[in-house]
Amino acid sequence: MSESTERDARHKARMQRKKALIDEKIAQAQDEYGLLLVHSGNGKGKSSSAFGMVARALGHGLKVGVVQFIKGAASTGEETFFRRFPEEVSYHVMGEGFTWETQDRQRDIAKAQEAWAVARRLLNDESVGLVVLDELNIALKHGYLELDAVLADIEARPMLQHVVVTGRGALPGMIEAADTVTEMSLVKHAFKSGVKAQKGIEF
Amino acid sequence: MSESTERDARHKARMQRKKALIDEKIAQAQDEYGLLLVHSGNGKGKSSSAFGMVARALGHGLKVGVVQFIKGAASTGEETFFRRFPEEVSYHVMGEGFTWETQDRQRDIAKAQEAWAVARRLLNDESVGLVVLDELNIALKHGYLELDAVLADIEARPMLQHVVVTGRGALPGMIEAADTVTEMSLVKHAFKSGVKAQKGIEF
Repeated sequence: MSESTERDARHKARMQRKKALIDEKIAQAQDEYGLLLVHSGNGKGKSSSAFGMVARALGHGLKVGVVQFIKGAASTGEETFFRRFPEEVSYHVMGEGFTWETQDRQRDIAKAQEAWAVARRLLNDESVGLVVLDELNIALKHGYLELDAVLADIEARPMLQHVVVTGRGALPGMIEAADTVTEMSLVKHAFKSGVKAQKGIEF
Repeated sequence: MSESTERDARHKARMQRKKALIDEKIAQAQDEYGLLLVHSGNGKGKSSSAFGMVARALGHGLKVGVVQFIKGAASTGEETFFRRFPEEVSYHVMGEGFTWETQDRQRDIAKAQEAWAVARRLLNDESVGLVVLDELNIALKHGYLELDAVLADIEARPMLQHVVVTGRGALPGMIEAADTVTEMSLVKHAFKSGVKAQKGIEF
């Protein structure tokens, strides 16, 4: 056998084993209900990934609710874009600036609680298929909101509704409650080598 | 000082240090050019995060090109959604099924090369502000495309154009060439506890 034919044969055998494994996994999965997904870690992509899921959900005809717990944390680009579809996306930017910009803890707490009231309304709405709670982990980590109360509201949501929670430093209780947890880690960042934050990419 | 006032004061001091650090970082960043971002790792969110960046870029008025190197790897949801904006998004789904579905190496190579021809056209187009090369890492890892040729085309793109490359198993040369590399790691997955892939979330 030539080297190339041998490689093709090995490849085929490997792919057949992989296909069998994946088919089995899919067959085993049976229940259908709304998932709680958590995106945490120090890397990029926690919020972007949630907004990618918004696009996906819209493509599947679902209605979406977004609550940004920290204004300015996410790009204004997503907001500008998704506000084009007010019938499909209910978009709420709460809070004011990063906490290290405002430096007023009592005000941050009040803002976080206002934001949670909006989130709770979405979590009670059966017509909403996906709720994005952007940077909620930050509000929880700083103690602006109580984890138990937040989890109780999330648990009580409509059965088929999906929820995505983003923000670094997810609390252990949030990870415990989640169906899927993804950790975004920074391997390498242009910022560190002196490149300015880019419109359309970094903010 | 009461416990609460003390906590607020500590919080304020910490936030002031943090703000100083971040302001300094932003001041140091000077150059402005298109970035090469790589999303790799075994976790979820590699492609979703790229599609979130598409939404962000559209919100900033950029034009976007998307090439999916493996049909079926990403959700059909994003495709359905972003095809609503043919003036703004040039969307191409290449390849046919997962390699472990087709099990034909020569055909996969031919498909990957067709896909690269489309990618190269976008990488030559100054009017395109962001190019997403979804699952390109997979095509490279399997040797369907040559890394050196791919990197040469990426390097030769218009100066302000951003590129996002997704897929697990990014080759060392791709990581070396990138400005930002994010590793998505799986912490916990509903799939493992027997939950079916969900429309609007998992596919």
